[in-house]
Amino acid sequence: MSFKSGLLAGVFALGLFSTPALAQDAATIAAAETLRDQALNDNIAYEYTRDVTTLFGPRPAGADTDHAAAAWAADWMRAHGFENVRVETFPLVGWNRGAESVEIVGVGAQKLSAAALGHSIATPAEGIEAEIVHFTSLDALNAAPVGSLNGKIAVVDAGQMPRTRDGSGYGPLSRVRSQGPKAAKDRGAVAFVMRSAGSDHHRMPHTGTTGYHDGVVPLPSFALSAPDADQVARLVAAGQPIRMKLFSSASTYETHSQNVIGEIRGATRPDEVIVLGSHMDSWDLGTGAIDDAAGGGITLATAKIIADAGRPARTIRVVLYGAEEVAQPTDHGNGGGAYVRNIGAEIEKHIIAGESDLGADNIYDLGLPPGTQNSEFAQKALAVLAPLGIAAGGEERFGGVDIAPLARNGVPVFGLSQDATRYFDLHHTADDTFDKIDPVQMRQNVAAWVALVKLIADSEVDFRAIAAANTASIASN
Amino acid sequence: MSFKSGLLAGVFALGLFSTPALAQDAATIAAAETLRDQALNDNIAYEYTRDVTTLFGPRPAGADTDHAAAAWAADWMRAHGFENVRVETFPLVGWNRGAESVEIVGVGAQKLSAAALGHSIATPAEGIEAEIVHFTSLDALNAAPVGSLNGKIAVVDAGQMPRTRDGSGYGPLSRVRSQGPKAAKDRGAVAFVMRSAGSDHHRMPHTGTTGYHDGVVPLPSFALSAPDADQVARLVAAGQPIRMKLFSSASTYETHSQNVIGEIRGATRPDEVIVLGSHMDSWDLGTGAIDDAAGGGITLATAKIIADAGRPARTIRVVLYGAEEVAQPTDHGNGGGAYVRNIGAEIEKHIIAGESDLGADNIYDLGLPPGTQNSEFAQKALAVLAPLGIAAGGEERFGGVDIAPLARNGVPVFGLSQDATRYFDLHHTADDTFDKIDPVQMRQNVAAWVALVKLIADSEVDFRAIAAANTASIASN
Repeated sequence: MSFKSGLLAGVFALGLFSTPALAQDAATIAAAETLRDQALNDNIAYEYTRDVTTLFGPRPAGADTDHAAAAWAADWMRAHGFENVRVETFPLVGWNRGAESVEIVGVGAQKLSAAALGHSIATPAEGIEAEIVHFTSLDALNAAPVGSLNGKIAVVDAGQMPRTRDGSGYGPLSRVRSQGPKAAKDRGAVAFVMRSAGSDHHRMPHTGTTGYHDGVVPLPSFALSAPDADQVARLVAAGQPIRMKLFSSASTYETHSQNVIGEIRGATRPDEVIVLGSHMDSWDLGTGAIDDAAGGGITLATAKIIADAGRPARTIRVVLYGAEEVAQPTDHGNGGGAYVRNIGAEIEKHIIAGESDLGADNIYDLGLPPGTQNSEFAQKALAVLAPLGIAAGGEERFGGVDIAPLARNGVPVFGLSQDATRYFDLHHTADDTFDKIDPVQMRQNVAAWVALVKLIADSEVDFRAIAAANTASIASN
Repeated sequence: MSFKSGLLAGVFALGLFSTPALAQDAATIAAAETLRDQALNDNIAYEYTRDVTTLFGPRPAGADTDHAAAAWAADWMRAHGFENVRVETFPLVGWNRGAESVEIVGVGAQKLSAAALGHSIATPAEGIEAEIVHFTSLDALNAAPVGSLNGKIAVVDAGQMPRTRDGSGYGPLSRVRSQGPKAAKDRGAVAFVMRSAGSDHHRMPHTGTTGYHDGVVPLPSFALSAPDADQVARLVAAGQPIRMKLFSSASTYETHSQNVIGEIRGATRPDEVIVLGSHMDSWDLGTGAIDDAAGGGITLATAKIIADAGRPARTIRVVLYGAEEVAQPTDHGNGGGAYVRNIGAEIEKHIIAGESDLGADNIYDLGLPPGTQNSEFAQKALAVLAPLGIAAGGEERFGGVDIAPLARNGVPVFGLSQDATRYFDLHHTADDTFDKIDPVQMRQNVAAWVALVKLIADSEVDFRAIAAANTASIASN
């Protein structure tokens, strides 16, 4: 075991050279390894994911199925030995897609496969028919003069998202989605249409939130599937003006969503809480298997498998957050923010948080909070994770949308990075269904989570103090 | 060169050992090889496929886009040197899908991804809501007693179609589609729902014709996408009664479709006609790129590339058939039947026919008419095709739906078998779009067609006489 430089490396070194600590280390590592290997043969995460996606189908935040799935999940927790199980509701503006259609009229007349972006406003009942102006980047749209799109439909095709393991192609295209409608409206457009932020070549439009302004999405806004975006680009290239007709009867309604919370109380340090997060809500097009029933399955299985082998030292809390997909301003509500508001001062007891929200394909690296990436704990964890093909990743400060409010309030976060190569083929589409879960890779996920969380739960490392000492920015970003 | 046994092998052997014939052979082979290699660098098939799918989108038989695409294709033929270009119309009962929905109500309530089967009758305006009876095979449905499905929805999930190079998994599942609605109605069912006859795992229902009885489809009939069929099977396995609500506003209308015909007249034996077929119509869900704009591209490119190098001895005729997808009884009309009726006695001049209607992936074998499979001609053709990875296939008697009426009336057929591994992922779905065409494999197709058709066009082999002598059944089946 070698030490790399680290501000507080000495803290761990203190324990390393005492024989009782070494023996304890060996026992903890052995326990983590045993649970890891057991998890590789355990299907409970897969079965949970199957059941919640099958019984409730799509679970848009605030819909009846969101409520019913949450109640069912609370029962699931109780039936599987979780303690202090509770459902905490928070108000929400829900969104109903209603009916929708996008078609080319006139030259090249044909129906297109498209979906309104989340919380998109409706068109007039007769639809919107107008000539399109076609842009190949968000920058190009932003460069258009004010007034230049008066009465037109702005179409932004910023190219196909590349498939990458780290999902890094998503950011630029999700910016088109979040910033495009406002930019189009500011220039006079009557509607906004984009190529989906997705990496597949199926007739599967990818929905997702866009930017709210004064509480609403500025324009009726749609995403085309990749083949349809290709089709429009070819028609535009042919040189004649292209007209589209758009229709959406989308509407909003007052409702609520909820966080479902359960825990395995710690045996010796129950007031030190490890939070494992994922989200229950899904987009309405699919059944939200990869996004994010899988995360629920992985984190619930983690706590259960650890608990079945005996109570850990620290408390392991699993939160199935509500309304992650629509997480934006507080007036729309989201589970991560509601959780932090509800726990109040108890946040001080949260020693670390982790989130699973990128499907269920293999985990390939581990990110730990600032100051602990090169620690003795990291060495231990990586030794236990290495047989799963997991290496050291970069320092982790974000964690994910659901636990970002925790991170912004001083809770350190870890990250087990999942292979996202396939993820953005399916993400936010009708194709996000249970058959896309690979049970072998999902078991690898659970094995990694079980091993890591077991090590954290039985460790005495004060991630909070170390992270705080190693960063000045984490609480202020 | 070796000879295998064959009734008329001696006919070819006569020519083989005379020096002028050998020289002619060598010249013909060289010409075919030159055109083959040229075709490997020619994109005209790809460009035709791109343009017809982009400009007209879906082309359901009898729809405005079917008519417009046919007129455009006739112009395309004229612009590319085809002769005697004509559009021959025939009456047709068209079908409009209208609006449709399939959902589970009650336990497991959720919308499903489904499509009405072709020419399915509408439901009542309020839809049909009923308990389902779930069968795992057509045999199981057929074994249900008359009356046992009274008031129920029959659901047949005969399992997922396997992917195979020869597409052989399609037959059993297309039988579910063609026979299921009548079998369900005979047992009292009020509607029929099946797992799609397809090999993909996307939320893409596969439509297609079912069986007409007394001129109509017996029940409102739908196909579920594979993930949705899985979902229903899981809910059924959970043990509670499952109810579905189905809606379709499908309707029929009187219209016409057409065959688009053009040819390259033969230089020395213009009355010996080689017919190359494909179909212009597509299902309404996709833009019919693999089914079958690609076939149009491949056969048009074949004739054009050969003609550009000089007029062949025999005439090469290209037919873009109408209404292949709905080809069933004559009262619904289809282009293959109309073509044979229109040509009348001229059919005697048709010396051979071939059809391209299985996408555009690599061709792997060649089938020739009865009696010619082991002939000198076959040896020559296989020698020219071998560098493309094409081997000898079995004897060919069917050819395809469009040329089956020719085959039934004594015209020999050849078959260049395409790799169908991907085909039934896309077939009859919204996902049948231009981006699914692999230009490299499409060029291999054109190269094979060009080489083979060039050899046939400049050959003196009387396929018709040989096939007739070698089979008693071809004209009677």
